[in-house]
Amino acid sequence: MSSNLGQNLSQNLRQFDRLKQFVMPSASMLNLDRQVASGAGMSQAGSQSIKSAVMVIGGGEDKVQDRKILRAFVENSGGESARIAIIPSASREPEEIGRIYNQIFTELGAASVEVLDIRERTTQQDLTELEAKVNNLTGVFMTGGDQLRLCALIGETPLMIAIRDRVHQGRMVLAGTSAGAAAMGHHMIAGGSTGDPPHKEMVNMSTGLGILPDVIVDQHFHNRNRMVRLMTAIASYPDKLGVGIDEDTVAIFEQDHILRVMGRGTVTIVDPGEVSYSNQVWVSSTAPLTIHNLRVHILSAGGKYHLLKRTPLSPSI
Amino acid sequence: MSSNLGQNLSQNLRQFDRLKQFVMPSASMLNLDRQVASGAGMSQAGSQSIKSAVMVIGGGEDKVQDRKILRAFVENSGGESARIAIIPSASREPEEIGRIYNQIFTELGAASVEVLDIRERTTQQDLTELEAKVNNLTGVFMTGGDQLRLCALIGETPLMIAIRDRVHQGRMVLAGTSAGAAAMGHHMIAGGSTGDPPHKEMVNMSTGLGILPDVIVDQHFHNRNRMVRLMTAIASYPDKLGVGIDEDTVAIFEQDHILRVMGRGTVTIVDPGEVSYSNQVWVSSTAPLTIHNLRVHILSAGGKYHLLKRTPLSPSI
Repeated sequence: MSSNLGQNLSQNLRQFDRLKQFVMPSASMLNLDRQVASGAGMSQAGSQSIKSAVMVIGGGEDKVQDRKILRAFVENSGGESARIAIIPSASREPEEIGRIYNQIFTELGAASVEVLDIRERTTQQDLTELEAKVNNLTGVFMTGGDQLRLCALIGETPLMIAIRDRVHQGRMVLAGTSAGAAAMGHHMIAGGSTGDPPHKEMVNMSTGLGILPDVIVDQHFHNRNRMVRLMTAIASYPDKLGVGIDEDTVAIFEQDHILRVMGRGTVTIVDPGEVSYSNQVWVSSTAPLTIHNLRVHILSAGGKYHLLKRTPLSPSI
Repeated sequence: MSSNLGQNLSQNLRQFDRLKQFVMPSASMLNLDRQVASGAGMSQAGSQSIKSAVMVIGGGEDKVQDRKILRAFVENSGGESARIAIIPSASREPEEIGRIYNQIFTELGAASVEVLDIRERTTQQDLTELEAKVNNLTGVFMTGGDQLRLCALIGETPLMIAIRDRVHQGRMVLAGTSAGAAAMGHHMIAGGSTGDPPHKEMVNMSTGLGILPDVIVDQHFHNRNRMVRLMTAIASYPDKLGVGIDEDTVAIFEQDHILRVMGRGTVTIVDPGEVSYSNQVWVSSTAPLTIHNLRVHILSAGGKYHLLKRTPLSPSI
């Protein structure tokens, strides 16, 4: 059983690497695998009712009033039949933050909520024990904290690969807020600074969870003046798309390659697809950058962006 | 004499309004009027040696070490034959700041330096007295302080119109730093805030000096995280060009419609020419903005931007 699982995980990993070559595999995978799942006649109860998506929340989401974003997560996960797990591993206080979200999702009517308080990297042996549990989940929520800590604990573990696989098959909703949002890309902004002319040293990159491999996410975006650090990051990865998400705001990566915006703030897209010149490969880490022809879109609630066409959709569409 | 002067100023003003209709009149005026001046056989000594330009400095320019930017201002103004006036009126301590720049420009070898410590709006009568002095200048430097104070004291006064006229004729170099830079446009950012999703209330607009009527300038740009307030400003004036200038950095608006960058930081161009949608006319002053298709260029020292073609020039050109 354990070796079969290992083989399956290995196959999944190879499949994932293959799929990563798509322009925007996160969305295309959702779409592709939805058809696969539909054709295969999914057996898990509730799988038909979930609205598969990756919900990338900019931190500071409303937890006490309308709780619009957290409510949308529960609804996308199946509402009354949602079976949710919280991964609080980014936080230094995982019990406390796990308890808070547990209470919220329970109040919002999820069928079951549990905390996966992961404090060591899971092994395949652990996953064998967790497999039934993971297969039964319809939603996973990653809390804030430190994205480096989160990725150190769960990045590329058998558990994470199993979750990512289910997300890409459209069988699970994955949400992350703050650090949990930052970790969504393959290339991840681990930290940085503001208040200076753009230069390479102002952003520290690391490896994320690869849920949205062609996106570089930044969060608490305009709230912490991070436009320039995202532009600086994207200058080094001109094949990626920069997505900066404000507090109490979510970028929902849905099927059909559409990114949809919900919440109080904005989602900023920094598209380097037309960049005609950058000095970033030539200059020192403290020298000011030159970047020609970045395209920027600022989207607010209701806004949509086509991830394959790389174009915002006009509000009438 | 006084009425002739008034008539001339009135003619100048009408000519200026006509010229303002050009796409980028600041540069085209410099060019056009250079030819006019050349054809007319300019009589003022030193006029042939000045390099006509508008120098827009992002504040915090080096005053004690290389003084590269201030040195360039003196050199553009004619070097050893430069006759410079300092307008310290943006500052609440005009004597002190006037004294500092006086000493610097003197040390840098200007033939003459004086402070025009204007504390009341000049009248045409005042200008009659100042006319010979203004006609003799090759460079004017506007200090930092408060751009609203500066414009309240000198905006659209006969003195300012006379200076602007000489600048547009290519007979004088005009430099401004910080508040003196902010005031260069016709539409001026008077103040604002950062650290929030973009919304109209985060930027306060007022009327500037109209030296570069098609540009909205922001200064201390990345140093004070002002990218979003410039984008917010430009959303309301989609026919203008946003120019954000870092500290110890200058955007030099030269003849031939070229903006050239010098200094330690960057000059950021925010071009709304392709904006396909914005909600700014529909939403309240506190609602988050939507703006599709802003084009952004970040330029560092040596970088050039063609103001008419609205395109950065590649470093090899």
